[in-house]
Amino acid sequence: GDVAAGKAKAAVCAACHGANGISQIPMYPNLAGQKEQYLQLQLKAFRSGERKNAIMSGQAAALSDADIDNLAAYFASLNPAG
Amino acid sequence: GDVAAGKAKAAVCAACHGANGISQIPMYPNLAGQKEQYLQLQLKAFRSGERKNAIMSGQAAALSDADIDNLAAYFASLNPAG
Repeated sequence: GDVAAGKAKAAVCAACHGANGISQIPMYPNLAGQKEQYLQLQLKAFRSGERKNAIMSGQAAALSDADIDNLAAYFASLNPAG
Repeated sequence: GDVAAGKAKAAVCAACHGANGISQIPMYPNLAGQKEQYLQLQLKAFRSGERKNAIMSGQAAALSDADIDNLAAYFASLNPAG
């Protein structure tokens, strides 16, 4: 995926996952440095409903495959230590 | 949870999630430094079947609430940068 395009798309994610991909909310996962393919699989699972979460299904519904690839690349590129 | 008890319980997890909680397999997530409550929620979801994964449902089936709390504490305690 394209990290820069992912970063642009990720503005809405920061509310829960942190501006640097480190969540401030214990229920919500850190995404920084996570595995790119894992992130793609989870976003697609939220989009398809295979994985259920009230907030994430809404967030993922409008994402294209390219959006998903770019978001996954972006978060995977972030420093896991924040 | 109890980090030391979690570490003892986590031996089987290393195969996919890495001995230091950093996965070597792109499909499997890093767990090191992840949010403790998020990890608890996911293990309980795999155990109950609310979240579906062929491997993880088997792994989580035999876990007690204490096991889950200890595993979550252990992985949350690991350095996210490995």
